[in-house]
Amino acid sequence: MGDDLRISWARLRGRLDALGAIGSTGDGGCARLALTDADREGRDLVVTWMRELGLRVDVDGVGNVTGTWPADSTEPPVLTGSHIDTVRTGGIYDGNLGVLAGLEAVETIITSGVALARPVAVAFFTNEEGARFAPDMFGSLVFVGGLPLEEALDTVGVDGAVVGDELERIGYVGPMPCPARPPAAFVELHIEQGPVLEAEGVDIGVVTGVQGISWQEVTVTGQSNHAGTTPMAHRHDPAFVAGAIAVFVRELAERMGPPQVATVGRIELHPNLVNVVPARSTLTVDLRNTSEDALQDAEAALAVRLDELAASEGVTIERRTLARFEPVAFDEAMVDRVERVAASHGLTVRRMPSGAGHDAQMLARVCPTAMVFTPSVGGVSHNPAELTHDPDLEAGANVLLDVMVELATADSLP
Amino acid sequence: MGDDLRISWARLRGRLDALGAIGSTGDGGCARLALTDADREGRDLVVTWMRELGLRVDVDGVGNVTGTWPADSTEPPVLTGSHIDTVRTGGIYDGNLGVLAGLEAVETIITSGVALARPVAVAFFTNEEGARFAPDMFGSLVFVGGLPLEEALDTVGVDGAVVGDELERIGYVGPMPCPARPPAAFVELHIEQGPVLEAEGVDIGVVTGVQGISWQEVTVTGQSNHAGTTPMAHRHDPAFVAGAIAVFVRELAERMGPPQVATVGRIELHPNLVNVVPARSTLTVDLRNTSEDALQDAEAALAVRLDELAASEGVTIERRTLARFEPVAFDEAMVDRVERVAASHGLTVRRMPSGAGHDAQMLARVCPTAMVFTPSVGGVSHNPAELTHDPDLEAGANVLLDVMVELATADSLP
Repeated sequence: MGDDLRISWARLRGRLDALGAIGSTGDGGCARLALTDADREGRDLVVTWMRELGLRVDVDGVGNVTGTWPADSTEPPVLTGSHIDTVRTGGIYDGNLGVLAGLEAVETIITSGVALARPVAVAFFTNEEGARFAPDMFGSLVFVGGLPLEEALDTVGVDGAVVGDELERIGYVGPMPCPARPPAAFVELHIEQGPVLEAEGVDIGVVTGVQGISWQEVTVTGQSNHAGTTPMAHRHDPAFVAGAIAVFVRELAERMGPPQVATVGRIELHPNLVNVVPARSTLTVDLRNTSEDALQDAEAALAVRLDELAASEGVTIERRTLARFEPVAFDEAMVDRVERVAASHGLTVRRMPSGAGHDAQMLARVCPTAMVFTPSVGGVSHNPAELTHDPDLEAGANVLLDVMVELATADSLP
Repeated sequence: MGDDLRISWARLRGRLDALGAIGSTGDGGCARLALTDADREGRDLVVTWMRELGLRVDVDGVGNVTGTWPADSTEPPVLTGSHIDTVRTGGIYDGNLGVLAGLEAVETIITSGVALARPVAVAFFTNEEGARFAPDMFGSLVFVGGLPLEEALDTVGVDGAVVGDELERIGYVGPMPCPARPPAAFVELHIEQGPVLEAEGVDIGVVTGVQGISWQEVTVTGQSNHAGTTPMAHRHDPAFVAGAIAVFVRELAERMGPPQVATVGRIELHPNLVNVVPARSTLTVDLRNTSEDALQDAEAALAVRLDELAASEGVTIERRTLARFEPVAFDEAMVDRVERVAASHGLTVRRMPSGAGHDAQMLARVCPTAMVFTPSVGGVSHNPAELTHDPDLEAGANVLLDVMVELATADSLP
């Protein structure tokens, strides 16, 4: 069933390039931070394509957008999709591929005239990256009821903007309720964003689940002082403590071994001058593991180290949780289905966890969910150099298409 | 001689407060970065006081301002002074005390009618702090011929402003040549900016010289990548390297022992996001020692560590010298004179090197030079909480006065 259907690669490639041109960083990359003018422009383009295809376009209270076929359907759809916001120095595939390949799959299903047992739909979720507003996977979290809408709308971004104000400003406050009615199933195509598939020469990653994520903001308050006249023994130096934390999380991840990863991605000093011991440092720690127990061990080890540093340096250290998600395991029948479909296309496959967070991990709370990964060249992501080769993009989109056709035409879903 | 002369404490206190109110940070501190509007306003106020006193006000090509008495004098003066620019989160005494106590000493000498063997003068030098334009002690460096005027005027600040443009804008380009004709002698009163005098209960620091200073900007370029999907072994992380450098310079200073100090005061990451391994970090390293050999050892050890980190992390590390001054020893006869005068006032004294850079170390290149330190409460400096108690300020100003009277009335200077 559906074995002969194939997406239009030319159309998908054209849409990837057209969307990627909005917020272009001029070096092959893309900067469309959530709810900015560039994000609005990207949203408007995708919505235009949805309407041209005859989908019913629904917008909810946090700006998630769903295009459904048939337009008059009321049953829970087989949903696909992802996000179109990017980090400040992002690529053009992260998220965008899942939305546009999903749109392509829906368009192929519609034009094929295949008889559907239930509707199909494609969505893009607000602020998946979390680069402007924490936590990440923000829109899908609200979609599944994990964050109350009112709280979401009051969220303040790193630039001081408020989610509710920005949604109003760009015209993406809609009437659909949050949490949403659960879909029949959800499947998301995404680039791997890591080096494993390419390194092993595998075509398709069958995602078994998503690593747990712990984001903390750490604020260190010490004693601002003159860099020349303050003997080392008298210092209470938040820059040194920030450095010691960056070194510690590296050592922690190496000691725990894969799949533990740990990253200090943000450091800010105040006043940030060459000849002043700073008064304050603010930094973030990103910890991830597929095991909830291991992730809690990492958090505990960090807490102990922060207490040690506070005592030894004579500084105060405050911690704030920016995001915390337990590891997620996807539905076994859905994972099996993705694996079987990909293999039937003559593609090599590999089961793997996702190192990155994805909207699919939120949808997994309310419906059977799976993900399809395509290889990332060099494992590079969140970077203008992010690249997946055209044949891999096309192969992934066709796997997504056939999985959706199976789900949309099956007499019943598990 | 001059033993009965005393400055007017009420007048000096009033001027410290009036100048401190310009650029007030509202918490007792002061923000008058060099050549900003606030700096202009502070300059205008001090120049007004100089003119009211009948001094001849001379401005040179880099904005250094000297007030000389008698106004028609042509002989090299006994010069005092310091600077009135501050760091972004500065106090109201750093630099300002030396200028206003110098003005007070000159005013006391004038009104006393004491017969002078040579003129007296008070100066404030441009951009001593180096917080906006590198290097620090910028104006006095140009004053003594250590930096060509043309090069100084082309200097670009951290905010992209150009020294020459900013001098024009605030109206402080003057006709006096740089380098200037050397004064007969120079003596500078300054707060210690460190904890030693207070900790030892000493009234006056007799400064024997100034630590050598090495400022480097270090730029680390790695590979921006996704914080969740990039295994630790695949990372080329400039934030980790910045942290490792901050930890290393702390260990280096502790291993070398006092008087070595080492500070990372600035760290910037790009793109500086919680879930992105950054592409680049920029940080500064401030190394100081009273021994040129030891300072070179510290620089060499840092260079070795940077090479190690570049190799082990697979990043490139570039170094740029922002400032480099060898240690300075002050004129022995001048140091003896300060010590004798302070002791004759019934004050306790301590010989000590300066941990901070000062305009006096530049003047020491061209004339007999000395400095007088007053205690800093808690050693706090470059901080709105910077404080020296009123009796200590007054005592320091009277030591400065008598040293100037001796120098200005002596038949001959060494």
